[in-house]
Amino acid sequence: MHVLPDRFLRDLHTLRSFGASGIGKGVVRQAFSEADVAARKWLIKQLKAAGLAPHVDPAGNVFGVTDGPSLLMGSHSDTQPEGGWLDGALGVIVALEIARSAKEAGGPPVSVVNFQDEEGRFGALTGSSIYSGKTTLTEADGFTDVDGVSFRDARASMADLAREFLPHDRFSGFIEVHIEQGSTLDDAGEAIGVVTGIVGSRQIQVTITGQQNHAGTTLMHQRKDAFQALCAFNAALNDRLRNIVTPRTVWTIGRMQLRPNAPSIVPGEVVFDVQWRDIDDDRLARMENLIRDLVAVIANDHGMQAEIVPIKALQPVPMDATLRAALSAGAEAQACGKWREMPSGALHDASNMARVIPSAMLFVPSIDGISHAFVEDTNEADLVTGLRVVADAVSRLGASTDFKGN
Amino acid sequence: MHVLPDRFLRDLHTLRSFGASGIGKGVVRQAFSEADVAARKWLIKQLKAAGLAPHVDPAGNVFGVTDGPSLLMGSHSDTQPEGGWLDGALGVIVALEIARSAKEAGGPPVSVVNFQDEEGRFGALTGSSIYSGKTTLTEADGFTDVDGVSFRDARASMADLAREFLPHDRFSGFIEVHIEQGSTLDDAGEAIGVVTGIVGSRQIQVTITGQQNHAGTTLMHQRKDAFQALCAFNAALNDRLRNIVTPRTVWTIGRMQLRPNAPSIVPGEVVFDVQWRDIDDDRLARMENLIRDLVAVIANDHGMQAEIVPIKALQPVPMDATLRAALSAGAEAQACGKWREMPSGALHDASNMARVIPSAMLFVPSIDGISHAFVEDTNEADLVTGLRVVADAVSRLGASTDFKGN
Repeated sequence: MHVLPDRFLRDLHTLRSFGASGIGKGVVRQAFSEADVAARKWLIKQLKAAGLAPHVDPAGNVFGVTDGPSLLMGSHSDTQPEGGWLDGALGVIVALEIARSAKEAGGPPVSVVNFQDEEGRFGALTGSSIYSGKTTLTEADGFTDVDGVSFRDARASMADLAREFLPHDRFSGFIEVHIEQGSTLDDAGEAIGVVTGIVGSRQIQVTITGQQNHAGTTLMHQRKDAFQALCAFNAALNDRLRNIVTPRTVWTIGRMQLRPNAPSIVPGEVVFDVQWRDIDDDRLARMENLIRDLVAVIANDHGMQAEIVPIKALQPVPMDATLRAALSAGAEAQACGKWREMPSGALHDASNMARVIPSAMLFVPSIDGISHAFVEDTNEADLVTGLRVVADAVSRLGASTDFKGN
Repeated sequence: MHVLPDRFLRDLHTLRSFGASGIGKGVVRQAFSEADVAARKWLIKQLKAAGLAPHVDPAGNVFGVTDGPSLLMGSHSDTQPEGGWLDGALGVIVALEIARSAKEAGGPPVSVVNFQDEEGRFGALTGSSIYSGKTTLTEADGFTDVDGVSFRDARASMADLAREFLPHDRFSGFIEVHIEQGSTLDDAGEAIGVVTGIVGSRQIQVTITGQQNHAGTTLMHQRKDAFQALCAFNAALNDRLRNIVTPRTVWTIGRMQLRPNAPSIVPGEVVFDVQWRDIDDDRLARMENLIRDLVAVIANDHGMQAEIVPIKALQPVPMDATLRAALSAGAEAQACGKWREMPSGALHDASNMARVIPSAMLFVPSIDGISHAFVEDTNEADLVTGLRVVADAVSRLGASTDFKGN
């Protein structure tokens, strides 16, 4: 097939006109907003023009499908409340250009998908969760946004277009192109990341209870200061995790609340979340054991009580070996010496799709690693390289006799 | 003079019936609440019965005065939203019993004061701040409580009783009896603390700004995590302060806010208060230098920005030497071997009174150091010992030819 970079970039820029923030290339296009629905209707026109059959499912996922079995490509065009122009939009327009070019070249057959609410206005990766069967439509209908609007009411705005859910078995595989949203590629001056897998994550909420007291009359040795216990925990955690992590393992204490949170009162309680992510589920489990032990040790050392509530546990999702191999071959051909294999630290629609269809992902760089912000950007040369790598990979898959999914 | 412990304890228990919480001996009697005004009117009756002339000033401070010059004693009967029965109430009823007993004994002349809003419904030590001239009545009128009620509107409930502010020079000195609100005396099994001075305090608000980022895609070595900088600051602070503090110096990080405070986002900013207290103003200044230097060092080490805003600086207030000597003599006579000299870690009305009149304080133990809570308590034997020590001291002062204040 012969992709057309100018056509691809023109469509990508057109898409950002839906919900343009007026600040740089930023976009405000949350799921089922007017701008989002308008963008999806614009995409339907482009799919038709490319000779694909548009199909909207009850979740608001927009497909453009070939007649028979095909590879599926895509991502999502909804954004965060303040989003960048590329995020999921890139994967949708790459899919459009590949499907269009493949059609023009007489194959291989490629279909397109634009999932709904990946950014979590209502749930988390809502559209692909429903499509993959992880969440039922009925469950999702009960989800509400921060203003109390339900997914059920929101999806009514596209109900006139909606038909049945497409069967999974008409797609032999799923490929999602996405910006990295980290700075690994940008820091290294590389153009392409072939994703090995999507990291798993675990999160617990910890409550440490000491003794609230007067910050003037309670001497230092008499205190049971919950904030001091948290700091001791944090220091010990950083120290002890070093022995079991890799350079790509991450852990974060990003949310916390002191009680009563007053400058003249020794904090009696702290509630905080610990979240950690890794590509290896065994490592996630070993980290959890260490974290739980450490909470108990620190509480005991400080004469305090501690309680742990599990918040979430998502298993790592390895990418399909055949699709990965094709993407790596494409990367080697189109970006020789400027690509790497790497895990995805963020969740993507491919996490859900891997449940039902062989799935893989390709990253292009994010300048300074910035995403979910109006300033999010990628050099257009890198966007085009990403397009060419996928075109190359899809051609290889089309010529391959052994790719029927695996 | 001959104090009557039973009469004293009966009055103390009667006072706690105003605003009784129904939970233990707890009291809910915030400044200018119905219960507070009723308690003050009840006190006026007791003052009259004791032969003192009641006098309410525009701030709602209730005095009971002798005809001529006198020693002034007292504290405050307003409480925290959830308060104990002793806190300021003890000092008011000790003053009543001493003034009454002195009157019965024909001298020395002792007047009584019950300051308003020591607990800060509107300001901080509002009544004594106004009486001492630290705050003007006009300034205080602009203070509002958490519900938006102004001091001006609140004090209208006692306006029918209010007359002029009493001149300071009719009082030769001020003695305030109070519960310790810490556990030094209780831990040591001692009955009396003669206060050497009221500690000064300083407070700054620090903002450390790193880089908000995705907690999945931002590797550990790429992060500028403001919470991690705070923890490093806290550890270094604890380590370096040890060289310049005494066992009674205290420092607290009691309030903080992470931004955006979300479990999946590397915190980009933390705002926190550092407060420290000591009896020595030079030490407070040395601590401030160290703290400010450390904020700069930590921010620089982490490649972050830091900003410091001074919040408050209260100088230590030494207690009057003559009054202290009389209290120490009284303590030695009435509680031999069971008393000590000690600073007050908390602010009291005596902090303000020391600006205008020689002032001193006496502490009795707080069981387990607990205060500002319904369970606040002191053994009645210790309350009576406190009464006897002050009676002894006041008698000595009355007999002394050199006490005209100093």
